[in-house]
Formats: sequence, C-alpha cells, structure tokens
Amino acid sequence: MLASKYYIRTLREAPSEAEIPSHRLLLRGGFIRPVGAGIFNWLPLGQRVLQHVEQVIREEMNAAGAHEVLMPVLHPRELWEKSGRWDTFAPTPLRVTDRAEREFCLGPTHEEVITDLVAMDLDSYRDIPTTLYQIQVKFRDELRPRGGLIRCKEFIMKDAYSFDRDREGLDASYDAMYDAYVRIFERLNLPVVTVEAEAGSIGGTDTREFMLLSENGEDTVYMCDSCDYASNAECATAQIPEPVEPAGESKRELVDTPDAKTVEQVTGMLDTTPDRLVKTLMFKSDSGFVAALVRGDRALNEFKLARHIHGDELRMASDAEVQDLTGARVGFAGPVGLPDDVRIIADHEIRAMSDFVTGANQDDRHFLNVNVGADFEVDDWADLREACHGDFCAHCDSGELQAKRCIELAHVFKLGTKYSSALDATFRDADGNEDPCIMGCYGVGVSRIVAALVEQYHDDDGIMWPREAAPFGATILLLSPDDEELRAIADKLYSDLQGCGVEVLYDERDASPGVKFAEADLIGCPVRVVVGRTTRNEGKVELRRRVDGHEELADVADAVEAVMALLESC
Amino acid sequence: MLASKYYIRTLREAPSEAEIPSHRLLLRGGFIRPVGAGIFNWLPLGQRVLQHVEQVIREEMNAAGAHEVLMPVLHPRELWEKSGRWDTFAPTPLRVTDRAEREFCLGPTHEEVITDLVAMDLDSYRDIPTTLYQIQVKFRDELRPRGGLIRCKEFIMKDAYSFDRDREGLDASYDAMYDAYVRIFERLNLPVVTVEAEAGSIGGTDTREFMLLSENGEDTVYMCDSCDYASNAECATAQIPEPVEPAGESKRELVDTPDAKTVEQVTGMLDTTPDRLVKTLMFKSDSGFVAALVRGDRALNEFKLARHIHGDELRMASDAEVQDLTGARVGFAGPVGLPDDVRIIADHEIRAMSDFVTGANQDDRHFLNVNVGADFEVDDWADLREACHGDFCAHCDSGELQAKRCIELAHVFKLGTKYSSALDATFRDADGNEDPCIMGCYGVGVSRIVAALVEQYHDDDGIMWPREAAPFGATILLLSPDDEELRAIADKLYSDLQGCGVEVLYDERDASPGVKFAEADLIGCPVRVVVGRTTRNEGKVELRRRVDGHEELADVADAVEAVMALLESC
Repeated sequence: MLASKYYIRTLREAPSEAEIPSHRLLLRGGFIRPVGAGIFNWLPLGQRVLQHVEQVIREEMNAAGAHEVLMPVLHPRELWEKSGRWDTFAPTPLRVTDRAEREFCLGPTHEEVITDLVAMDLDSYRDIPTTLYQIQVKFRDELRPRGGLIRCKEFIMKDAYSFDRDREGLDASYDAMYDAYVRIFERLNLPVVTVEAEAGSIGGTDTREFMLLSENGEDTVYMCDSCDYASNAECATAQIPEPVEPAGESKRELVDTPDAKTVEQVTGMLDTTPDRLVKTLMFKSDSGFVAALVRGDRALNEFKLARHIHGDELRMASDAEVQDLTGARVGFAGPVGLPDDVRIIADHEIRAMSDFVTGANQDDRHFLNVNVGADFEVDDWADLREACHGDFCAHCDSGELQAKRCIELAHVFKLGTKYSSALDATFRDADGNEDPCIMGCYGVGVSRIVAALVEQYHDDDGIMWPREAAPFGATILLLSPDDEELRAIADKLYSDLQGCGVEVLYDERDASPGVKFAEADLIGCPVRVVVGRTTRNEGKVELRRRVDGHEELADVADAVEAVMALLESC
Repeated sequence: MLASKYYIRTLREAPSEAEIPSHRLLLRGGFIRPVGAGIFNWLPLGQRVLQHVEQVIREEMNAAGAHEVLMPVLHPRELWEKSGRWDTFAPTPLRVTDRAEREFCLGPTHEEVITDLVAMDLDSYRDIPTTLYQIQVKFRDELRPRGGLIRCKEFIMKDAYSFDRDREGLDASYDAMYDAYVRIFERLNLPVVTVEAEAGSIGGTDTREFMLLSENGEDTVYMCDSCDYASNAECATAQIPEPVEPAGESKRELVDTPDAKTVEQVTGMLDTTPDRLVKTLMFKSDSGFVAALVRGDRALNEFKLARHIHGDELRMASDAEVQDLTGARVGFAGPVGLPDDVRIIADHEIRAMSDFVTGANQDDRHFLNVNVGADFEVDDWADLREACHGDFCAHCDSGELQAKRCIELAHVFKLGTKYSSALDATFRDADGNEDPCIMGCYGVGVSRIVAALVEQYHDDDGIMWPREAAPFGATILLLSPDDEELRAIADKLYSDLQGCGVEVLYDERDASPGVKFAEADLIGCPVRVVVGRTTRNEGKVELRRRVDGHEELADVADAVEAVMALLESC
C-alpha cells in the first residue's frame, strides 16, 4: 500500500477521555474513531488488524472442524421467550419494534437463534456432532462503556456452538474448541491464563475464561503463587480455616448501637474490628428466606450463594421483608432468634470465630459475644465470601492467592440441554428415541483482542503489533523521495516483498524523516525498512524490529530475504 | 471439505411461502434458513457463497483504490438530525433507545456516519480524494419482506463513499466505482444493464442503477427496442407527442356525474374512454399549490413532478385543502376556474388532446369538451406521466419502450455537498479557504446478488453457480465408498485439487448414487467429478459442467488438469 494513497490519519494527542494505552494508541494511530459512547468506526488500518485477527480465528475454527455460518442481528422476541430469557437476560438487550409491531432484540449472544436453526435441520443422530461458528457484530446495553474497545455497546465476537449426542461427545467438542483457543492465542502472541468462571446469563458448567493479565483490565483473577490454581473473582475459593471451639466464657450481651447500620459504624461504636463481627444478609429464594452470614470485613459472593442453593431464583430481600422477618430496620439483622423457616447459611470462616458481634434484630441494637451453638444454629456451612489478595490457596499447602487485573478474551461453557430442550433441538437416536442434543458454547471477543494486543504490546512511541495481527507485516520508509536511485530501490523492494506475500505499507510521501519514523513507530508494523543515506552510501537498507528495537543492515540484493526472516521472528 | 463432516441439509420440498426460484432453491439446497420475515441465517454453504461474492467485491474495490472500513450498526440520533434525515428518511429506520435514554437508528445507509468520520480526520486538500467502503449488515423496516433474499429486513451491503475537492474529482471517483461495478458483475457472470434512476432518500444526481433482468424481479425498467436507452420506472420518459390544434368546434358543457369519482366511474357514466379524460391531481409544495394534469389512463410520476418544481417539499394536498381550493369534494377537481395562485402543470401528452373531459370543481359534476386555451391556461408543460410498455422512445426515431422486470443490484449516486455541508466535512484548499468536500456514494446489494445469481443460473434440478461465487469449485462424488481402490483414487484427487487451490466438496458418504447426484445438482458446484464404475472399468473419471451439462472423461492421471480446465470455463 502506498502511504500517499492510503487513509493514514494519526493524531499527536489522544482525546482526554482515552484513559488506557490501547484506547489512546488506537485513536492516535488512526485505527478507530468514536461514533458514540462504546461505538466505533474501524478506519482502514484498524479494519486490516480486525480482519487479520478474524482470519487467525477462522483458520483455527476451520482446522478444529467447525463450520462458519452467519446469523442475524435481529432476534425475534418469540425465540427468546422460548428460552425464557426475553425478560431475564441481564443487562436487558437493546430492543426494537418494527412497523408491524413485531419485537426483536439486537443479539447479545446467539444461543436461541443457533438452536432454532439446528432444530429445523436436525433429524437423526447421524446429523451430529456438529460445531457451528460465526464472526458477527454483537450488542450490549452498557450503561458506562469504557476502555475503548474493551467494553463496548457494539462489538465483534466469534461465537461457536457445539451439538452432541451425549456428554462424552460434548467433552470432545469442548476440548477441540478449548485447544483451538489455545492455538489462537499462541498465534497472536497473547500469553493468556485460563481460569474457572461463572456462566452468568448463558448458563452451563465447566466454564473457563481465557484471561490476559493486564493492569488496565477491568476483571480480576486470583492466581496461586505456588500451584497452578487460577479463578476469576466470582469463583475463586480460599482455604477453609480450621474450626475453633467457641471460647464459651462470655455471655451474649445486648448493647445500644443507635443509627449504626454499617460495619464501620458498628465496630467504631463498639471499639472492635470488622473481623470480629458477622454480617447477616437476607435473601429471598424460590424455597424461602435465606440469611447469609459472612465476616464483617468480607464481601458476600452472590454467585456462590446462588450455586449453594442450586440456582433457585435468588434476590436480596426488600427492606419491608427484612423488617418483617427481623422486627428491625435494615442494618440490625442478626442470626439470633430469626424465624425457624429462615435458612441460615454461614461462610466457613465463621467456624473460626467466637464471641463475635451481630445485629440483634432490634432497632439500634447489636449483640456482643455471640457464639454458634450457644446462641444460634447454622443450617449450612458454605464458601460464601469473595476471595481476597493474600488468602491461603485451597488447592495447595503453601500458596497464597494473588489478585491480578486482567482482560477477559474468551469464554467456553458446557450448556447441556438448556436451550435444546427449550427450542426442540432433538435428534432420534439409533433406537428411534427423541433426545435433546447436548450443547456447548464458545465465545471470543474479537474486537477486544485488538485492544488486548495493544495493551500487551506497546511502548511510549506506539504500538508493536505481533506479526499475525499487524495491519502490514513491514513498512518501507523512503527518506528521500526525490532521489530517483533510492526511489527505484524502494519501489523494487516494495514490489518484490508483495510478490512474496508480504503486506507492505510503503511510505513514499513527501514528508520529513522525523515524521515518517514517528508515524511508523506509532502504527507499529513489526518490521521497518529504511531506504536512505546508508542505502546510498553503503548499498544497504536498515531493518528494525519494532517489538524490541533490534536493528540490522542488509545488502539491497538480500533485502527481501532479510525482511522475511526478521518478520518470521516477530 | 468432506461431505460426511459437513453441514449439508438439503430439503425435498421448499416451504410454500417460497415463491421464486432463488428463495426455493437456497432453502432446498441448505444455503439459508428463515429466522423471521425478511431475516435469515446463512448456513455453511450459503456463508461460503456470501464470502466469495464479498471477496470479488473487495478485490475490485481495492483495485479501484478504495479502502475498507467498518462502521457501526448503531447510529446516534444526533448525526441523523444534523443531516435532517432523522424524521424524513423513508421508510423510518428501525430505532432503539438504550438504558441511558440515548436514541439510535439501525443504519439503513451510512452517509451520516462516514461523513462525520471523515469530518474528524479531514484537514487539507492533500487529504483527498479518498474513497472508503465497507461490507456490512444493513436494516430496512420492510412492511412485507419478500422474495427470500431479494427484499429483506436485514441484509448485507457493500457501500462506498468518495470525497473529492471538486466536480472533476467526483466525476473521476464516480467513474472508477462505476467501472469497478462493471468488473464485479462481469466476474460474477451477471449480465446487468445500467439505467437512469432516482436518488430517493439519499439525494444526488447522475444516479444509475445496475439491474439484472429477471422475471422475478420486483422492479421495472424500460428499455428501447431500437437504441440503448434504458431507465428505471421512476425516470423513464417516452416521446412527447406533437401538439394538436384544439378542435375548437365544441363548447364546454357541464354534466352531472353523481358520485363518479374515479376515472372508470366517470368514463363509464359519460360513455367515453380514459384517454379522452384529463385527471387533475392537487399537490402542496413549498411555493404553493400545484395542479398536475395527466391523461386519464396514465399514472402520474411524483418523482418527475418533484423534479420539475426543483425538489421543493412536495406532498399530496389533503382532502380539506382540495375542498377549499376547488369548492368540491375530492374526485371532482379540474383545471377550469382554479384560483390564480394554483400552478397548473400539464403532461406533454395533453397537448395532443382536445375536447376532453375534466372535473368541474363542483360536487358530482364534470365538464365535457374542455380545451387548453379556450377553457384554461397551462402554466408549465412537463413530462409528468409514468412510461408504459409500447411508448415511443424519446431517444431515437423508431424504437418502442419495452417494460421488463428486473432486480436492482447496485446504485451509484453523485451526492455533491448535501452531507459534507451538514456534517462539516470541509477541507482547506491551497489558498486556505474552507470548502465542503464533494461526495459520491455507491452501493451494492451483496446478499441480493446471491439471490440474483440463483435467479439467473438455475434449472429444475437446482442451482448452477458461476465459478467465482460457487460454494466449492468442484464436487467429487465417490459412488462406491466401500471400494478401497476407488476411494484411494478419489482421496488423491481431492487432495491434489486442494493442493492446486481448488475448493472441493468431496462426497464420500455412505449414500446411494441417486442421492449424491441429486444433491450435487441441487447444490450446484460448477464441476462435478464422478469416481465410479467408469473409473474401475476404464481408468477414467467422469466430469460434468453443471451450467450446460457438458460431459467429458479424463484419465485418472490427468484428472486434476481436466478439472481445472473445465472449471476455468465456468
């Protein structure tokens, strides 16, 4: 590509709202432009990167035996009602009503559509296994889109769906997709870690996320510093402490704590510390009220609580419900004297506590010296709290959990029959019985990968694209466009490299060397070739590898081979 | 691709709602599946065709110097308000409101977004000319989607936009796109005709449409049977007849025509014919009321009327306005005695009429024997009527216009500065003056091309894809999968053809020859290769060209070359 004919629009400064390097550099380098909050245009340079990333994904999907399809943006309401997600998917998808008063959502994910598609075509067990994927625009009604391409309202995803006869088949399809993801991230030079994860609105088990550790990520993973345990924040578990015998010396004591509703207010008033208080949080599930107890300095993990009660509908109790159950205002609930039909579920950590503080189920009052057994009974012990940096690892003897910021790039789920049952994607087995097929689903954030690549590979001067994602493999800078001899050399190198299948950005513009060098560093093609003074004086071109600044000279006659060898190393 | 591993789902019967061949065959062949009215899934076979068509378009766009971008589906309301189209674009685009109460439309076209994009980046005259394109999903709130992929609610388009300094630049950019379109349709074997067209909601001049003549098209073109004049229905003009002197013998006569409001009712009651009546249609424009007169058997073409009054806002007068102007109910308006400020514009054809019938501007009454001059004056003569099959051509002496059904596949417009002025896409010229850039826009219906290909290339047995669009170039049918010798031959041919860059669908399934032949004909790869009895008995494979049934034999050793030669001819 001749730079003089291309759409190169670099910026000296990024807009102030661009807070992280990928957002700043993708704007500055002329890869993307904002259209609205969380909505972007992809400029020619960005579109090339996007297509290259898509191509890597496409090749690995095809190699894994998946077949590419294309599903629509508009999803009829009826399909989402069959799955039960029209009213429950969070956040509520963007919705549109047409002139004929038909309702649609803009697909945030395609389980309904793909399952309905397969249901139309699926007949016999001979029709499966099959895995279908698409690379398609998706939508999410983000209240606060941020981080440039990290969290958008409109973004590109690759989503794949597998359909199998049985669990063993699903395991094989899942493993094939998992392995394909590993290869994708290897080819893109992205050192991801895979972690345990929650399925969220999608549903399913064996969910794993592929995370890129990055200080600008918006997710957190906990990784053991000793063993290979890794989990996202929603799933991470710490070691369960040894139970202690309650001290038993002290008697429960009722104290006034006027208007002290928060842990800080209560512990301040009672001159104690949050780790000596037990918080009582009231929930409503399908099967009744639940009181969840965690230590005062811990955060309750609602995913864990929901999982413990086996996914019954779960929500925070309303203020009125709390008042009704405890007889006290919100802020003074405690486990002592709750109605019998409230199920008390306590975090394991409370087993190691004695003589603790709890709410007294009376307005403006707390209890001191509360003990399990002496003062109340626990129905279930469970892991309810969020893990913390420095927690002991539950999976080895000596490790501690380290909290790390990360960017979620991919997610694999075993869905089972949730969608195939709801949408009648059944097959006849060898005996003629109708069974729902067993599904898996597998997503990769394509546009998010572009941001992750920049987060991982940049310096103060700009982006350092890995070879497979780069907009061009090499850029040639012709420093004296008026020198006909040099121009002929650069022209030939440009043509020869293209003949060898290398995508080249050839900067033959009438601009200063300083501008060309700066722009080349900002745009970040893996290999830079300078045709300039050294070429005239010594018959050599200057090569430079963007990622580490490695430089070498090559005779003009050997330049093509040298560029290709250097590119191979990027 | 091994058929046994592929997603092939052919149907014996197409659903009854599929009324045209492309819809039926794309469903039956397993290329597409319905999701909702005018919304489709692309199955693996269909997705391959779509990608091949996209690739042809992409290559020709790139060869023409255009650069690929990707713009979003969600268009902020603010952008469409700047262009004035938020409330005026017809049909109203699908709209969505997010949680933060921001409004968007789902892009039916991208003038606003691209112009805003370029406005951000455009600085100097050195930045242009530039032409940007995208291949992207688009939306149109069709009340009655029909014809399968011909008219959809959600569809794929390639849209390109050029930005120039001046009219000469626009002409060059326009010609480059026009020529690229010619090449695209040549490569896809689509014998399009280009016709004059109207710009509609997009605006602009020099609009041309690329039409494929097809009895299942929903558009009409008029083509001269003698010269090369061709136009779509909105623009087509017929020869203007010679004026005649009014007969002048007869005197205007008022007659009762109770409740006769339509041309048929009036002429029936008065025992005359529609070609002896003049219809008077009342409109309101920015500059006042207009009475448009056309012969009773003709249809008024509102585009022509609007063009004649130079694009002032034009709408039909309301019933109340008609009553007010004429003093009569709707159905009895006529040119005689209208208020002076009503501009009377008459179709040229009326010059050749005398002693005609008109409404009398009195309830339930018409005039007989009306004549221009004697009874009323015409302010402007103009071409106002729709052309008809058999009209004399206006562009040659002897031709007649032939009405033909067609499918619109592409459309090119010169936009001028409509969007660049509204959205501040200005550049500084060499003297430092700010000017809006001059725009063109160029659209191709990508998914519609897939339908058009099938309309053009099919027979009773199925589709006959041209080479560049075909899902696979060749299909190998192995008729005796259990015969190890034959399987080895077919396996090797499959592998060798792929090594030569041919995409091959290899049907090695355990199915009957009849099923394989029928499915191959239905799916329609250009070249079929049969490895079967002839191979065992004579050492030859059977080749067949799908489009014309041409058959030949090739020695196994020469099979690759023979397939490639045959494919080249498709």
